[in-house]
Amino acid sequence: MLQQRSSSLALALSSSLRRSLLLQTSSSTQRCRRAYSIHADASSGAKIQDIDPTKLSITKTTTPKSLLPPEELIFGRNFTDHMLSLEWTASQGWLPARITPYQNLSLDPATCVFHYAFECFEGMKAYKDKSGHIRLFRPDKNMARLNKSSARIALPTFDGDALIDLIGKFVKLDERFIPQARGYSLYLRPTMIGTQRTLGVGPPASALLFVIASPVGPYYPTGFKAVSLEATDYAVRAWPGGVGDKKLGANYAPCIVPQMQAASRGFHQNLWLFGEEEYVTEVGTMNLFAAVKNKETGQNELLTAPLDGTILEGVTRDSILGLARERLEPQGWKITERKFTMKELADAADEGRMIEVFGAGTAAVVSPVRKISWRNRMVECGLEEGKEAGAIAQQMKDWIEGIQYGDEDHTWSHKVL
Amino acid sequence: MLQQRSSSLALALSSSLRRSLLLQTSSSTQRCRRAYSIHADASSGAKIQDIDPTKLSITKTTTPKSLLPPEELIFGRNFTDHMLSLEWTASQGWLPARITPYQNLSLDPATCVFHYAFECFEGMKAYKDKSGHIRLFRPDKNMARLNKSSARIALPTFDGDALIDLIGKFVKLDERFIPQARGYSLYLRPTMIGTQRTLGVGPPASALLFVIASPVGPYYPTGFKAVSLEATDYAVRAWPGGVGDKKLGANYAPCIVPQMQAASRGFHQNLWLFGEEEYVTEVGTMNLFAAVKNKETGQNELLTAPLDGTILEGVTRDSILGLARERLEPQGWKITERKFTMKELADAADEGRMIEVFGAGTAAVVSPVRKISWRNRMVECGLEEGKEAGAIAQQMKDWIEGIQYGDEDHTWSHKVL
Repeated sequence: MLQQRSSSLALALSSSLRRSLLLQTSSSTQRCRRAYSIHADASSGAKIQDIDPTKLSITKTTTPKSLLPPEELIFGRNFTDHMLSLEWTASQGWLPARITPYQNLSLDPATCVFHYAFECFEGMKAYKDKSGHIRLFRPDKNMARLNKSSARIALPTFDGDALIDLIGKFVKLDERFIPQARGYSLYLRPTMIGTQRTLGVGPPASALLFVIASPVGPYYPTGFKAVSLEATDYAVRAWPGGVGDKKLGANYAPCIVPQMQAASRGFHQNLWLFGEEEYVTEVGTMNLFAAVKNKETGQNELLTAPLDGTILEGVTRDSILGLARERLEPQGWKITERKFTMKELADAADEGRMIEVFGAGTAAVVSPVRKISWRNRMVECGLEEGKEAGAIAQQMKDWIEGIQYGDEDHTWSHKVL
Repeated sequence: MLQQRSSSLALALSSSLRRSLLLQTSSSTQRCRRAYSIHADASSGAKIQDIDPTKLSITKTTTPKSLLPPEELIFGRNFTDHMLSLEWTASQGWLPARITPYQNLSLDPATCVFHYAFECFEGMKAYKDKSGHIRLFRPDKNMARLNKSSARIALPTFDGDALIDLIGKFVKLDERFIPQARGYSLYLRPTMIGTQRTLGVGPPASALLFVIASPVGPYYPTGFKAVSLEATDYAVRAWPGGVGDKKLGANYAPCIVPQMQAASRGFHQNLWLFGEEEYVTEVGTMNLFAAVKNKETGQNELLTAPLDGTILEGVTRDSILGLARERLEPQGWKITERKFTMKELADAADEGRMIEVFGAGTAAVVSPVRKISWRNRMVECGLEEGKEAGAIAQQMKDWIEGIQYGDEDHTWSHKVL
């Protein structure tokens, strides 16, 4: 247990950060009991310097990498020639952005990111359309979420449009790494870390935001492959009032052992249940959707857990809900965000009402589920033998990829100019 | 959301680590529902190389630092001349330890510690006794806890005695930084981070264990100063089945905003409550003790929350419990580890049964509490006006420091030879 001198916490707050915090506090003074999470106000930044894309400096690599054959690309293992970096200090705000050759970070061993997990990130992709234009998919959602994540751990917020602008310039510079083929993309990893080099537990007075980029191939190179899940009842990923709805590093390391235990028993992923009721929350690091026939009405229903603070606010989740409301509701579907239990899913399977189940995330778009191991039984998720995906999962993948690759003109697709 | 290819998780497990995990799994196959946390078996390491202190190499600094005047020492801000480092790989195990000049870490921006919070640490101190010998306090407890923490996030475990041996050599080398005066010590920060440089979410195949050391002065330079707390009911630090009992970086960054909000309203620390019942768990980053008169029997009772997975297993907490059982029980005290609620404390205050409340941790040993803000009222914690500490807090500080500084000969004090 380490502990600052009792009087030093207030002193440790930089005046600007403290100003921001006080603003935040005043709006949350009406502290509602049992509120699900702190919604730090990302817009209440103090009046120090925000990101200014016009001040970008670029230092190009003198040793460009050779491109890997597309079939050898492995997620997150190889990176492009450059990286985008922005430093922040509590007194100055965001310093001018730099694009430099991809390079190591040199950090004092006392830097707070190593000790107290001051870190949050985003996952997003750049796609090449048929005309060779680079497109991002709903980057505003990623920027909003990164701001929410960073504010929750006392890291700085920023102007999302300014960062999108800079990411566009970075991707443009490294665009030769984006294979121009369906299923291929450039995975982008905006990351923010606290860089203060003291062991006192307090808000970091300096931070680094960096973006690295890794070319990736299709998640399912030979077509869908449905996964089997193990419901996890002995470990809990997130809790009301916790931080499970933010994209913090803190939410990931603790998930590995349960995932490895599921793998050791032959399952691809674990399924996180919550509470005595065994509510279905997330699968591994994806949101989960279930399509069932309603027990009373017989209506087709697409279910997913609500944003109650215990699940990540997935961009793909939001996109699926939006498309389902626009395009499946007219076909008679009911689209529902509500808590549902593992028993509800098992009952649907037992009673022949299960249609399909799938995960949703940036990497795979959708990931069909064949079966779920739960309480010493196997819940079949509606896939016929020999089939690797249900109709809704397939439809969603087609719709979303159609938008991502610019086949369908849509406001969600952001063209990099 | 990022997601590995569904088939790659199993592949990503190094064979040795997988062997370790399988061992772990077999012992936890009887998965008890609602178990509080995963107790990864720290002793089930695979038969790869453990830490071998005889292989230590030492490179001394050529630019020794000048010592700061003791009164200028600030916790965790200045460090000694050297650091101790050990690298681990899944295929080779622990590589030979190195003592080198204190220096920056150079890490690829894709390193997993920056993204998924693969990081855990310890806080412990080295003291100089009257004869000039260096002493550690219960270092075996820190080693056991670091092993539990690392196993919970799929980082490697190690031989605790071997690391204590190495830490002794490191402290000995930098002993001129330990002021020989009561209340002064050398704060030691063993830290383990995952160093694999890929973005796939899986068990790290490489890690770094390092120890840095910061000379510190007394927590209360001019005597105790009782703190005021704000009970936090809108955010939750830890939960059953989570990782709140491990010393992970992941448990710290999410605590800052609630702590800053308490500070903005004039409180020194926040007090973490849990559940509808509002159980009292921890204060800031310390364990909490309350001394009250039992409502029915009138007996003096020293209460602290049980190790149910939602509180850190504090070494100071354990030491206070041990000393209280040995030395206070014969004086008629009842020593109790059980869940207790904020309302119980408020009732004790209202009914004149409150004796005292204090936090317990490595930095301060004990930290007396004057009052707690809870539900728009103030709960007074038994301190008379003008007094800054209760008798039990003072007694515990004296007993524990007496052992730490070697005034009392005790098995808890580990002499560095």
